[in-house]
Amino acid sequence: MAENKPPKVTIAAIADLAGVSVPTVSRVVNGRSDVALATRERVEELLTRHGYRRRASAGRAGSGLLDLVFNDLDSPWAVEIIRGVEDVAHAAGIGTVVSAIHRRTASAKQWLDGVRSRATEGVIFVTSMVEPPLQAELRRLNIPVVLVDADGIPQQDAPTIGATNWAGGLTATEYLIRLGHRRIGLITGLPQLMCSRARMDGYRAALEAAGLPVDDALIHQGDFYHESGYAGGTRLLGLPDPPTAIFASCDQMALGVYEAVRRAGLRVGADVSVVGFDDLPEVRWSSPPLTTVRQPLAEMGMLAARTVLRLARGEHVESLRVELATELVVRDSAQPPRA
Amino acid sequence: MAENKPPKVTIAAIADLAGVSVPTVSRVVNGRSDVALATRERVEELLTRHGYRRRASAGRAGSGLLDLVFNDLDSPWAVEIIRGVEDVAHAAGIGTVVSAIHRRTASAKQWLDGVRSRATEGVIFVTSMVEPPLQAELRRLNIPVVLVDADGIPQQDAPTIGATNWAGGLTATEYLIRLGHRRIGLITGLPQLMCSRARMDGYRAALEAAGLPVDDALIHQGDFYHESGYAGGTRLLGLPDPPTAIFASCDQMALGVYEAVRRAGLRVGADVSVVGFDDLPEVRWSSPPLTTVRQPLAEMGMLAARTVLRLARGEHVESLRVELATELVVRDSAQPPRA
Repeated sequence: MAENKPPKVTIAAIADLAGVSVPTVSRVVNGRSDVALATRERVEELLTRHGYRRRASAGRAGSGLLDLVFNDLDSPWAVEIIRGVEDVAHAAGIGTVVSAIHRRTASAKQWLDGVRSRATEGVIFVTSMVEPPLQAELRRLNIPVVLVDADGIPQQDAPTIGATNWAGGLTATEYLIRLGHRRIGLITGLPQLMCSRARMDGYRAALEAAGLPVDDALIHQGDFYHESGYAGGTRLLGLPDPPTAIFASCDQMALGVYEAVRRAGLRVGADVSVVGFDDLPEVRWSSPPLTTVRQPLAEMGMLAARTVLRLARGEHVESLRVELATELVVRDSAQPPRA
Repeated sequence: MAENKPPKVTIAAIADLAGVSVPTVSRVVNGRSDVALATRERVEELLTRHGYRRRASAGRAGSGLLDLVFNDLDSPWAVEIIRGVEDVAHAAGIGTVVSAIHRRTASAKQWLDGVRSRATEGVIFVTSMVEPPLQAELRRLNIPVVLVDADGIPQQDAPTIGATNWAGGLTATEYLIRLGHRRIGLITGLPQLMCSRARMDGYRAALEAAGLPVDDALIHQGDFYHESGYAGGTRLLGLPDPPTAIFASCDQMALGVYEAVRRAGLRVGADVSVVGFDDLPEVRWSSPPLTTVRQPLAEMGMLAARTVLRLARGEHVESLRVELATELVVRDSAQPPRA
């Protein structure tokens, strides 16, 4: 990361020369897409001609650190993302600073003070939404930002790594149909999160493609927490014509369905099939082991780290939104329906 | 963390004045106990008299970072420790650099290069054993070290935070005895780890205190992984006179016992009682929810962070080994034996 030459020009000077604002130059430097193509080309030409060196100009080339920021560290998949980010960063000789800002302004402010003093190379947020003032300040500091977006809400101006939620919902439901199920329940996540909608739309698409009716009575609105999986499972199993299989759109809710099945005196797999979504490391230890849609969280962390380090080197990224493929992991919790 | 005055003396100067070696002074500065009391007092008196300021002398006061080092980030309780450390560090305005060194020398060396360049305030290792060359180099760099010791092997010269493993094994077994169980199986962890032995000794002590025989046929040697819990549970349940309850000395193995119980066509709780050890966040979602001995991992991380920050400020710590209390968390997996 060492830079041998001193900085030649500032962003402000480039902005003057290009006849654009400082934030516009900053956006080009950070590889953001919300700059008109002609402007981008003019700015990039000036950056190259004047030998602008992104990190050096900010006085913090080679700090050797990147920041990984969660809202909370209580999520069971946080460690998967940390593992992926750390793996890539470590290989590049970069340390990973892990923080939790708890959706609190004071906490974010304190984190930002730390970022200023330690001159981070780049920031990865694990969230679908970064507060605009925080975003503006990072832009002002010329620090590149990448989002690992578990929620699936595309944000405009930072590269975002997600997963193929719609395809995952489709695959889970198609698998249950292939096993012979005709009445398949769904427990959704929070409706305001795009990933919930995408998974639900995948479920509907699979049913429709198979010529099966979409019965709203079989769709229970959950919130991604265990309790809502338990409540949804209990309600669906209590229907006069209950489903023979339930697709829970996250693993935590799937384990809630397990508990509902157990309390109903039934067995997961043999009596009621269950499919989850995430493939958290723990679910291979569920009893029976959970069949689920794998979301490649560690790989998403790896790609986020690679992307933010590329931006820190002043490279351009090809796409603002990348979705990594989900895949079905077949274990024992889904079986053909009882005759 | 700012220091207003420049450093007055070096460690080497203090060593000269005290007539001891530089490493000895370094050990006193870092609060280690392997220094004779008279020597310690002489050195501390000199340090005070000459206004020695630990961090400033190393030229890296107030880097605003501490390092948290795991062997691997694949453990389900890694995130609990990260959460505890980050919480305390964040409140102190300190960033937490999380690393995994995979028990590889090359990886540890690269991490050490990073530590040198980012001037960390202190290091927390989550392991019972730090390689001596690594330890020596950190001592040379005058960087304080604290261990979070999940394995329970006391190490000589760095403050260590553990949990009361013996008391936890005792409590789990006493609880099963109180429920009415007389044949209680045990699945141990790796015998070379002190925490396994401590938990087993707690189990034996509870049986003996209750006047119950310790039957070696009921003790299965596991390795803390799920598979060994499954294998142990399967073997114990296949005995001619099987146990009515099983204490698995970690949660992951307890979930393996769940699977053994299920495959034997029995029910956890109603037919076979199971108690675990750790209280990982996930086990409250097991079905039935697992009764287990809580190891306060987040609190252990918090105390480790507080301790290393105190050492970084040149403060002394009272004790080289602190064990935080375990406690029984009663849920549904242990019930009175069937009549």
